[in-house]
Amino acid sequence: MNIQPILTNEQLYPYLLKARYGVEKESQRVTMEGDLVTTDYPEKLGNRSFHPYIQTDFAETQMELVTPVTDSVSELFRWLAAIHDTVYRSMDTNEMLWPLSMPPALPKTEENIVIAKLDNFEDVLYRRYLAKTYGRRKQMVSGIHFNFEFDDEMVQKMFEIQEEYDDYDQFKTEVYLKVARNYLHYRWLTTYFFGGSPLSGPHYFNGHERPTEPVRSIRNSEYGYKNHEDVKVSYRSVKDYVNDIQQMVEEGKLSEEKEFYAAVRLRGGHSVADLADKPVRYIELRNIDLDPYQPYGIGEEEVEFLHLFMLFLLWTDEQADPDDWVEQGEQMNNLVALESPLAQTACYDEAQRLIVEIRSFIKQTELPVSTEILDRMEEMLDDPKQTLAGRVYLDAQKRTQKEIGKQEGLSYYKKAWQAPYQLAGFTNMELSTQIFMFDAIQKGFDLEVLDEQDQFLKLNAQEHTEYVKNGNMTSKDTYIAPLIMENKTVTKKLLHRAGFRVPQGKEFTSKEAADVSYEEFRNKSIVVKPKSTNFGLGITVFVDGPNKNDYEQAINTAFKEDDSVLIEDFIAGTEYRFFVIGDQVKAILLRVPANVTGDGKQTVKELVAQKNNDPLRGENHRTPLEKIQLGESEELVLHQQGYTFDSVPNQDETIYLRDNSNVSTGGDSIDMTEVFSEDYKQLAVQAAQVLGATICGVDIIVPDIEAPASAADAYGIIEANFNPMMHMHCYPYKGKGRRLTMDILKLLYPDFIK
Amino acid sequence: MNIQPILTNEQLYPYLLKARYGVEKESQRVTMEGDLVTTDYPEKLGNRSFHPYIQTDFAETQMELVTPVTDSVSELFRWLAAIHDTVYRSMDTNEMLWPLSMPPALPKTEENIVIAKLDNFEDVLYRRYLAKTYGRRKQMVSGIHFNFEFDDEMVQKMFEIQEEYDDYDQFKTEVYLKVARNYLHYRWLTTYFFGGSPLSGPHYFNGHERPTEPVRSIRNSEYGYKNHEDVKVSYRSVKDYVNDIQQMVEEGKLSEEKEFYAAVRLRGGHSVADLADKPVRYIELRNIDLDPYQPYGIGEEEVEFLHLFMLFLLWTDEQADPDDWVEQGEQMNNLVALESPLAQTACYDEAQRLIVEIRSFIKQTELPVSTEILDRMEEMLDDPKQTLAGRVYLDAQKRTQKEIGKQEGLSYYKKAWQAPYQLAGFTNMELSTQIFMFDAIQKGFDLEVLDEQDQFLKLNAQEHTEYVKNGNMTSKDTYIAPLIMENKTVTKKLLHRAGFRVPQGKEFTSKEAADVSYEEFRNKSIVVKPKSTNFGLGITVFVDGPNKNDYEQAINTAFKEDDSVLIEDFIAGTEYRFFVIGDQVKAILLRVPANVTGDGKQTVKELVAQKNNDPLRGENHRTPLEKIQLGESEELVLHQQGYTFDSVPNQDETIYLRDNSNVSTGGDSIDMTEVFSEDYKQLAVQAAQVLGATICGVDIIVPDIEAPASAADAYGIIEANFNPMMHMHCYPYKGKGRRLTMDILKLLYPDFIK
Repeated sequence: MNIQPILTNEQLYPYLLKARYGVEKESQRVTMEGDLVTTDYPEKLGNRSFHPYIQTDFAETQMELVTPVTDSVSELFRWLAAIHDTVYRSMDTNEMLWPLSMPPALPKTEENIVIAKLDNFEDVLYRRYLAKTYGRRKQMVSGIHFNFEFDDEMVQKMFEIQEEYDDYDQFKTEVYLKVARNYLHYRWLTTYFFGGSPLSGPHYFNGHERPTEPVRSIRNSEYGYKNHEDVKVSYRSVKDYVNDIQQMVEEGKLSEEKEFYAAVRLRGGHSVADLADKPVRYIELRNIDLDPYQPYGIGEEEVEFLHLFMLFLLWTDEQADPDDWVEQGEQMNNLVALESPLAQTACYDEAQRLIVEIRSFIKQTELPVSTEILDRMEEMLDDPKQTLAGRVYLDAQKRTQKEIGKQEGLSYYKKAWQAPYQLAGFTNMELSTQIFMFDAIQKGFDLEVLDEQDQFLKLNAQEHTEYVKNGNMTSKDTYIAPLIMENKTVTKKLLHRAGFRVPQGKEFTSKEAADVSYEEFRNKSIVVKPKSTNFGLGITVFVDGPNKNDYEQAINTAFKEDDSVLIEDFIAGTEYRFFVIGDQVKAILLRVPANVTGDGKQTVKELVAQKNNDPLRGENHRTPLEKIQLGESEELVLHQQGYTFDSVPNQDETIYLRDNSNVSTGGDSIDMTEVFSEDYKQLAVQAAQVLGATICGVDIIVPDIEAPASAADAYGIIEANFNPMMHMHCYPYKGKGRRLTMDILKLLYPDFIK
Repeated sequence: MNIQPILTNEQLYPYLLKARYGVEKESQRVTMEGDLVTTDYPEKLGNRSFHPYIQTDFAETQMELVTPVTDSVSELFRWLAAIHDTVYRSMDTNEMLWPLSMPPALPKTEENIVIAKLDNFEDVLYRRYLAKTYGRRKQMVSGIHFNFEFDDEMVQKMFEIQEEYDDYDQFKTEVYLKVARNYLHYRWLTTYFFGGSPLSGPHYFNGHERPTEPVRSIRNSEYGYKNHEDVKVSYRSVKDYVNDIQQMVEEGKLSEEKEFYAAVRLRGGHSVADLADKPVRYIELRNIDLDPYQPYGIGEEEVEFLHLFMLFLLWTDEQADPDDWVEQGEQMNNLVALESPLAQTACYDEAQRLIVEIRSFIKQTELPVSTEILDRMEEMLDDPKQTLAGRVYLDAQKRTQKEIGKQEGLSYYKKAWQAPYQLAGFTNMELSTQIFMFDAIQKGFDLEVLDEQDQFLKLNAQEHTEYVKNGNMTSKDTYIAPLIMENKTVTKKLLHRAGFRVPQGKEFTSKEAADVSYEEFRNKSIVVKPKSTNFGLGITVFVDGPNKNDYEQAINTAFKEDDSVLIEDFIAGTEYRFFVIGDQVKAILLRVPANVTGDGKQTVKELVAQKNNDPLRGENHRTPLEKIQLGESEELVLHQQGYTFDSVPNQDETIYLRDNSNVSTGGDSIDMTEVFSEDYKQLAVQAAQVLGATICGVDIIVPDIEAPASAADAYGIIEANFNPMMHMHCYPYKGKGRRLTMDILKLLYPDFIK
């Protein structure tokens, strides 16, 4: 196939840099001391028998992190970040991930390497077979499998342009076959630049045949994790590839297909046999060593290079019979892998030629990519110290390989625990959604962000799909319930008729009409207020009922602010947010208006700055609490108390900067879930039921928590919120966090989460 | 009870003019000729065995219209209007309601008066008993029962102020007992002013004993609809009242409680016996004659007077033993009822005294009411021609009583049919909601408007409650479905993945990025447009794919209008709205942009005015179509075609004034429901299912209706609307109307509506 004229066709330009990527990354669980853990697989994670993101490789200690298929490099790394965050925070707090391909010190006795305790006995049997065939020690090496798929439209365009093939599937398969063979021929280049396993750890070889260390990549050498010599599979055609693998299995040279440890696998259907009918859909590169200096074992630059490399391998022509071509590559790779990490490579000239050719390819296809990586590769060619193997080796000289693993691992551990409420990769989304996503990833839901700005998620498990917006809007509520809650008049009507205590109100549009109604209110606790209030202006409260003069004055004051004045029942007491999910109150929160407590020295402004310094405080619902603002509202509220931003409050004096208690305006959140008795919780649940709501936040004023809910005037329901914030309950300012996100997952999938 | 000091207590002021009202109004169904109909009860109405608003009285021809309990006079009349509209438009189009209390000509043979064909055999038996006891003819008289309840807070305040009674229920009962006795004593006053049955019609008396006509009110006289002489019930106390009625029944003087035809009934529980335990809750005034000059048989002024009269009857002290007091009233009323309508009443002085007392009462309680009605009553006292009886009698002299009934009836019939899409009383609500309410009233749902601005309704039937907003937002949709539809990105994603054809789009924020993507679009039908468009500026369509030059120019043009430019698949064809309810498409509509068709003479402006003259066109979704505007958008669209508002289009030339086809901007609606084949309907239903929607409007572009939906490029789904307008389908500009509102009622109550 003369592919170069096809790839330089302008029609392909928009597609060349598009691709789909997926990463599977193995890592050993270790203690903070860098020793292999002896604990079982983390209990918090959903079952390994279906978990799409978090699996176990050979050993019980060996985590496998699997991203979904992604459409861009940045998306790939968002998922790597999120899955790493989830894994770190699902393990014991004194465990972390070992960042190197070569395992930490292994047990002296091989049997102490614990095979993964999987539910499926066949999976265990397979691992026992591997232990017997290759030894447990060799199975402890970790690495990255990189799945790569060309943009499908690109392959289609190529097919339209070429004239050799009539069948699209056949053409597509040839594309991937060529790339696979070329990768097998040229992969020594990645071993040179990205090989990262120069040294073995204690008890890795343990008396077995071993290379003279240091090398570029033990893992990619003949001493690495590879099949026995008698396993031979041809990449000449898919037919050969399939037949050979099947024959190896039949002859018992492989226990099953997945034991075929080539550097590249052709991927299509479910099993290798499927490739007989279906085209190759993508390829799996299996030879990537972990980069201990990257938090996720691989960096964006390396992925971008691999994409470029795949395009180049499609572009460049093979120079020999397919099997020979692959065999040559095998030998060159072993040679490069076993070179000293500081030595110039024997393939120096060939490497330089390839870089020149890649540059030429970029030019001919007008590929809009930076060539910085190629510049750096040229530097690395001349200076092997700059290769990954060179860097790891030199670093190990300075601080030992164990310390590299320990210290780098610790830095990633700290990063994951630094803001344990956030989900790395998705920190631009609302915090409630981040927490929800964390829980969904942890438990093994198929998760997809349908729309980021809109906090719109898709979940799948047990062949059942649910859509969730804002973490709290689901199919479990009807359409009419939030509309009822949105309409305060309707909400009050329904609650009032159902016998709940709800502040009743009247609206007046003239002073005369309000004045005439005085008798109606003279013995009631009321609040007189303009219909729309700014900074609480124009509001008067009469706890024991107004005298006529004060009443009229309050009406006048309110009418100065608006043409419409409300007189509402005043229910004295503290407002609490009851978070109802289904037939239970899952959390109760007291929200305290934005405030600072004086120390007799600092000004209000300084105290606010100090309080805002807490990393829990941020902006726009991306942190559990919001920063206190120093705006007009706060200035006014201070002014009404006789303060300014520059006042110095006394020691232990608490100053409020807001009339409203919302967390979103800098208020504090205090968990009260266990303080309230069951009768108040039932009240909130029943109110939600009257409104037909499954998930809602009921705001209730309670003057005295100790009084029973059935006591006269024990409570007043203010409103019900159909989009209640969840994160403030999950991470309150004070008190115990309530994992509402998990409760919602349970509501959606009652049988899925134990 | 010394009630006057209580009623003048300032605390009562806010409550005196508050009350609850309900009306039951009987009317005979007649032909357009004013003859009693021979048809059965209207089939369109829900079953009489439960219907809350529309019942049958004695005869099959005798409709009984029942309002719900209302809190204000205006609300009472809204319901009277709505129920009348519903009744008129549920009867045969050649039937109307007879507006007089005295029936139209009755059949010569009494047996030809058909007793109501009710399902419940006991109800039929009761009517047969009445026919036997009183004769069928007498049962054909119609009138109004007016239910009146003082504001409960007022009665409570009175109770708090008084010191005589310890028991609230007892006090409340005494209040109503006093009013009832006083009403029975003074009701001759209402007979004088509002009596409206001076003349009988053919075959009404038919040889039976009869008054010398004309009189003031046959119905309220001893010749009217009243119990036999031996039925005696005391209003001295509730105990007496209950015992007497029960004894009359036991003795067989009454067949059952409801045969007690007093001018006032005490109302509380379900049966009279309940009054032994429960307080009287309201009273029923049963002596109101129909006023043929009022569309609903009674006017607002009369209701306002009755309220004032109730207050006065509570205020004024009884002057005799209770039974004597009532008996005196009975005699005076018969006297007044049988006076000639043009004669001065024998009670002239007493009437004048009462009006003076009412004025004094108003003054002492500072009641903020107009006294115009009292002025007019004084005039009527001096000039009996102005009383209702006087007017009807004089009118009948001029045009016969039959013509009064026929002509007045016809004017109300015309009013009900004038705008058959609207629901009188609720025309300020959106038209879809008006139609929905009409259907709900017709079928006999308990209906309540929870919030008028918000189009929020409550329905109840079969002990099951549903809430509905905008007529189309219900509990049958989940909360997440409309959120999916609201988000166009998510909608397109889900539909695309499910295999539907959906226009795909890309967003660009720089010319360079858009230019580089040229190859992606060169062979596609695309539309290039600014992300937000005003009047369609900056849009370019390439049906057959652009050449590079035109493409870049289109990009430039679009970027002049916005910083973000969209390139979307262009799907040629006509857009149709498929209205999906459950698993069916219930209506399909073609919407044509606002347009006029020329006559070679008139200007565009004149043609628009002519088209807008159609009463079907209004504003703000209160009519089936909207008026065409002559604004900036229309000016621009005309300008692009080389026209101005003053251009004169040729004969039969159609000129469009809008690019968009929305009915809300003056477009025309054309029903296409039966034009489309089943496969397109299935497509819309399946798309709705993918989005999880039960009620939605799916907008689909179809280039060729004749092509099967499975053909390549047969369609493109543009979007799904979660708040689709219904009224444009119910009353389209052309084609058959589709009663979607009834379909939604069926969806909510599948077993309730046959």
